[in-house]
Amino acid sequence: MRPSARQNNQLRKVSFEVNVNRYAEGSCLIKMGNTHVLCTASIENGRPTWKRQQGLGGGWVTADYAMLPRATHVRRGRDSNKTDFRAVEIKRLVGRALRSVVDLDVLGERQIFIDCDVLQADGGTRCASITGGFVAMYLACEKLVKCGEMRKNPITHFLAAISVGVHNGNVVIDLDYDEDCHAEVDANFVVADGGALVEVQATGESKPFTGEQMDAMLKLAKDGVAALINLQKQVVEG
Amino acid sequence: MRPSARQNNQLRKVSFEVNVNRYAEGSCLIKMGNTHVLCTASIENGRPTWKRQQGLGGGWVTADYAMLPRATHVRRGRDSNKTDFRAVEIKRLVGRALRSVVDLDVLGERQIFIDCDVLQADGGTRCASITGGFVAMYLACEKLVKCGEMRKNPITHFLAAISVGVHNGNVVIDLDYDEDCHAEVDANFVVADGGALVEVQATGESKPFTGEQMDAMLKLAKDGVAALINLQKQVVEG
Amino acid sequence: MRPSARQNNQLRKVSFEVNVNRYAEGSCLIKMGNTHVLCTASIENGRPTWKRQQGLGGGWVTADYAMLPRATHVRRGRDSNKTDFRAVEIKRLVGRALRSVVDLDVLGERQIFIDCDVLQADGGTRCASITGGFVAMYLACEKLVKCGEMRKNPITHFLAAISVGVHNGNVVIDLDYDEDCHAEVDANFVVADGGALVEVQATGESKPFTGEQMDAMLKLAKDGVAALINLQKQVVEG
Amino acid sequence: MRPSARQNNQLRKVSFEVNVNRYAEGSCLIKMGNTHVLCTASIENGRPTWKRQQGLGGGWVTADYAMLPRATHVRRGRDSNKTDFRAVEIKRLVGRALRSVVDLDVLGERQIFIDCDVLQADGGTRCASITGGFVAMYLACEKLVKCGEMRKNPITHFLAAISVGVHNGNVVIDLDYDEDCHAEVDANFVVADGGALVEVQATGESKPFTGEQMDAMLKLAKDGVAALINLQKQVVEG
Amino acid sequence: MRPSARQNNQLRKVSFEVNVNRYAEGSCLIKMGNTHVLCTASIENGRPTWKRQQGLGGGWVTADYAMLPRATHVRRGRDSNKTDFRAVEIKRLVGRALRSVVDLDVLGERQIFIDCDVLQADGGTRCASITGGFVAMYLACEKLVKCGEMRKNPITHFLAAISVGVHNGNVVIDLDYDEDCHAEVDANFVVADGGALVEVQATGESKPFTGEQMDAMLKLAKDGVAALINLQKQVVEG
Amino acid sequence: MRPSARQNNQLRKVSFEVNVNRYAEGSCLIKMGNTHVLCTASIENGRPTWKRQQGLGGGWVTADYAMLPRATHVRRGRDSNKTDFRAVEIKRLVGRALRSVVDLDVLGERQIFIDCDVLQADGGTRCASITGGFVAMYLACEKLVKCGEMRKNPITHFLAAISVGVHNGNVVIDLDYDEDCHAEVDANFVVADGGALVEVQATGESKPFTGEQMDAMLKLAKDGVAALINLQKQVVEG
Repeated sequence: MRPSARQNNQLRKVSFEVNVNRYAEGSCLIKMGNTHVLCTASIENGRPTWKRQQGLGGGWVTADYAMLPRATHVRRGRDSNKTDFRAVEIKRLVGRALRSVVDLDVLGERQIFIDCDVLQADGGTRCASITGGFVAMYLACEKLVKCGEMRKNPITHFLAAISVGVHNGNVVIDLDYDEDCHAEVDANFVVADGGALVEVQATGESKPFTGEQMDAMLKLAKDGVAALINLQKQVVEG
Repeated sequence: MRPSARQNNQLRKVSFEVNVNRYAEGSCLIKMGNTHVLCTASIENGRPTWKRQQGLGGGWVTADYAMLPRATHVRRGRDSNKTDFRAVEIKRLVGRALRSVVDLDVLGERQIFIDCDVLQADGGTRCASITGGFVAMYLACEKLVKCGEMRKNPITHFLAAISVGVHNGNVVIDLDYDEDCHAEVDANFVVADGGALVEVQATGESKPFTGEQMDAMLKLAKDGVAALINLQKQVVEG
Repeated sequence: MRPSARQNNQLRKVSFEVNVNRYAEGSCLIKMGNTHVLCTASIENGRPTWKRQQGLGGGWVTADYAMLPRATHVRRGRDSNKTDFRAVEIKRLVGRALRSVVDLDVLGERQIFIDCDVLQADGGTRCASITGGFVAMYLACEKLVKCGEMRKNPITHFLAAISVGVHNGNVVIDLDYDEDCHAEVDANFVVADGGALVEVQATGESKPFTGEQMDAMLKLAKDGVAALINLQKQVVEG
Repeated sequence: MRPSARQNNQLRKVSFEVNVNRYAEGSCLIKMGNTHVLCTASIENGRPTWKRQQGLGGGWVTADYAMLPRATHVRRGRDSNKTDFRAVEIKRLVGRALRSVVDLDVLGERQIFIDCDVLQADGGTRCASITGGFVAMYLACEKLVKCGEMRKNPITHFLAAISVGVHNGNVVIDLDYDEDCHAEVDANFVVADGGALVEVQATGESKPFTGEQMDAMLKLAKDGVAALINLQKQVVEG
Repeated sequence: MRPSARQNNQLRKVSFEVNVNRYAEGSCLIKMGNTHVLCTASIENGRPTWKRQQGLGGGWVTADYAMLPRATHVRRGRDSNKTDFRAVEIKRLVGRALRSVVDLDVLGERQIFIDCDVLQADGGTRCASITGGFVAMYLACEKLVKCGEMRKNPITHFLAAISVGVHNGNVVIDLDYDEDCHAEVDANFVVADGGALVEVQATGESKPFTGEQMDAMLKLAKDGVAALINLQKQVVEG
Repeated sequence: MRPSARQNNQLRKVSFEVNVNRYAEGSCLIKMGNTHVLCTASIENGRPTWKRQQGLGGGWVTADYAMLPRATHVRRGRDSNKTDFRAVEIKRLVGRALRSVVDLDVLGERQIFIDCDVLQADGGTRCASITGGFVAMYLACEKLVKCGEMRKNPITHFLAAISVGVHNGNVVIDLDYDEDCHAEVDANFVVADGGALVEVQATGESKPFTGEQMDAMLKLAKDGVAALINLQKQVVEG
């Protein structure tokens, strides 16, 4: 029995509230249970400096990730002198994941910035950032297409992410914070529409794991992502 | 005629959504028109380090203020190496203002941290932070009183803040971003319940101003704050 | 009775020593009692980067403010990793105040940097920085006019600043450190020649204040600034 | 055919030079082809601060990772003001991996610091850091056991890591820099003695990948790690 | 002929203005020609943290060095994110030099902080900082002895420093900025009362130098320092 | 008798291993006893920014210096927020020394970066960095000459550095860490081929020193450097 009384393959209640920011080209407030992430997608003209310096063409997609000071049980003040290593790891993952489904040549000399700000955290914030960030990015691209600034949407696949883990010996999906703290294995899967894998990260927190557990987690993740992508499609076609 | 078609003494639509964060002792999402600020109040045990080092008793109240990267028309990335001077000025003001209505001896060996995160900015974010931060702080104190951790609420007065300015020669209240950009004088008034002044800041942006204008601004501000404090009372007595 | 035995409306002994720095275009060591601030004005050709990027014309005026490590009772070492929030607040005020009396179009594509270094602090350093910084800036502009680099002095008004406060229930001017520590209300007025207000900042340190006190402070400030501007004129006309 | 003319399942030439540092409790210079990483393990008494503050017992294992400025084709100067996001990601991985095979209760109130300095990089530096860092850590623990400071070696399993990828459609092991740059999928497997998985990270660089490819990579990685662990055992029993 | 028309062994006009700061235990404004350095000595109780951690007794002496933004021909803004390498080198030299003439056991559990702020620079600022810093330190120690806080003055020797160089083939003393810029050899000598050497630094700026030049510079420096120490004695015995 | 049982004028065992890095234009691992420094020389096209801004021609030579975390008895973690003052002092010395024997006009619009990374420290790391860095720089220049990118080698003299000190009253050369800790005088001499002095730094650590000791140290240093330069020549002519 899971602490939340959910089935092993049952996601938390998911909702997407779109266009929540009047300035961003695209925006989405995703809630997965008590995890709430405000995602905005900003599109700016011009290549990033490093592409220009290296004479490379095409656009770029990058992400930022931060938590509000009281997103967690204990307040965590901003300390501008301390790099948040965990946030660095996550923003690189989010950027890499979202970039993987954008055709950078179609994007052209533009950069997309996805900002993921965790208003409240209860486990799974990096996956929520990818899933919600995708919606914000999709809406931003659609907006540019509609107003004629971009000839077509450079997004090649829908994309979502979900956490899976082994808890009390069971393979379970979409762990909340309490469950995550006591999980034996903790994994995150970023999966594209159709089931192709974009990124897999699995860590044996308290003990190593087996290839069989890996397979079981992968299967659960694919189903969970398929459900999330269905929701994304409903939302963006709104 | 104001750009927003409001009367000179007319506030924007104001709303307070309370208890929006499950971890903070008190929280409030304040919306003044398109300015949206998420305020949380966290109460921690213990004196601040500097009070301990100086052998001083009593508690303390401090604030932080930040904007999400896309709170504004143009995205502004976090640059951990650049201090945001404007934010520093504002967080000092917010902390000072809220501290002025707390009896630090009654608070005892506790610190209150007010975090104000601007989700969307359209002028008046510092005043919204004070007005919304007060509600969050009040709720946090009430919570501790109710659960018996604090013998009585250390807050001595209700408190709110409002911006007033001179625009096209008219003294107007609660300027939005467009109006603020073209204001000749820009002022912020922090006022306690009953009309006593806590902080006054007035700047002649494009030209100096007169004592008469100062008086007119003060009068408008007092009325505006009185209306805001009425709303605060309804909300916290909910 | 004030701790310093001065009258309520009596300034401390003020002196301006000009051209104390051989490199700066203008310089002034201002002493207001035991508060000593070394002000230099440097004029550099070229617009600031942000004006260039936004395609804006005209010049700019900016200020910096710092205290020497032993300007105060207790030594305060330089810690390059900690932003001095108070200094940030002050340098923004000084820059804004001095900029308000410069015609940026007449200044042309130049920047004026006012550096205010507090050699010794005994209250009122921000006001002394504005009053002394004005003299340095005036002299710097005059120098460029005299040597033919600038067609006319871009300064539109004389300008000075003074602190006023409520101490033991009395409205008093030009508080020194001891008085300032125990003041109930602490205010700073930046006033242009002729009495027009440029910036007003008033804070109820230990308790709120009234509109009547505000008026009394304003009156005292205007008289004090008028005296300071008289001295400035004598000094710059040498 | 691979650029290096190796078989798909063929590791580069691997060597471990141990006790290369006279101060560290354990040390190892690992060379995997042209990738050279100097690993030292330092054991210090005392719990980390965060454990002490939270009242937690047991020891801790942490890692650092850095490249010398000319470890790569292009010199990369140290810039103390810019956080190296990639290095942050890697040092978290290395620390997590090595910690997973240490019994922190047996370690007792001690911290192990693994420093991995890349003298020369040619792909696979994070895996070499884990594999070489393990040897340094093992030797350090043995040393403390031998001199009677620790009752038994707290290491529970041997551990190594290897990169695997998909290049030109083939699943290949231990990619060098040239191969890595053009790989379609890039994965790192941290595997314990006996084949249990400790960490899996797989990224579709240019396109998504399938569960079948995941399985094939996993199989190749297990064989490669088994070979590396054999070498580790020979070296530490040396 | 020197640019300043001075003799090769002729110092610039030197003056010491003491007790210029009302808070510091000792202070001195030294002027060597147009080089003006404000030196303060602050004595605080307690050992430095590192001595306490290592269980070492006795006091410590340390120095800081900074230039005001317009101490030089070209304004140099404070950039809190860039370490001033030159200042670091100088403050280490000043601290080391002054520490060498203090008996740290007699000083006891106290720290002396010497702050050297260059108000105006015209060459030789590091030597002026040592020579003026010594006076400030001497006065601070005397003050503590006089008020009975310290049983005797811990200073063992008088100490001063002077720059010497080779300019146009001539060995000359106390170079000003213009001379320094074109010197072939640039040296600084820190010498104790009686002629014993404390620190020697000599650099061949544009070409190497000989042992004979070294000897000639040493001789000139000793005479110059002897003159400076005479002045120091007059000043402190004032 | 020296702790190491060496004669007063006896260097430690010295070795130069060249071309140890496959990417750097020149590289050298220098070992002086247990002091091991990995030196790389990187040549990049283009003037440094500051030369370009000031309209100056010719190339530039600069150095960096760092210790690996466990190069010393006690591990010293990297703290990106604390400037290592000692390292700053050393890298300025190394850069200045190596630059002194390069004809910057012959070098042309190129920069040479010498990176000195101390793998293991046992005293004398700054001198080893200069001596080894020279070899790396020489090899780098030769390489560019051989491949026709530079018309001739811009190095004007061979150059090496050695530490000399007074220990137990004896003037001794090439102090190791133990000896250095207890030396009364600590000096470093940078000397060019033929015996001309490039930089002299001498510090009386525990007491001042005399001109005679200075002469004796100088003599010892010249002999030591002559021996080192002989070795350098053998190595680079390989």
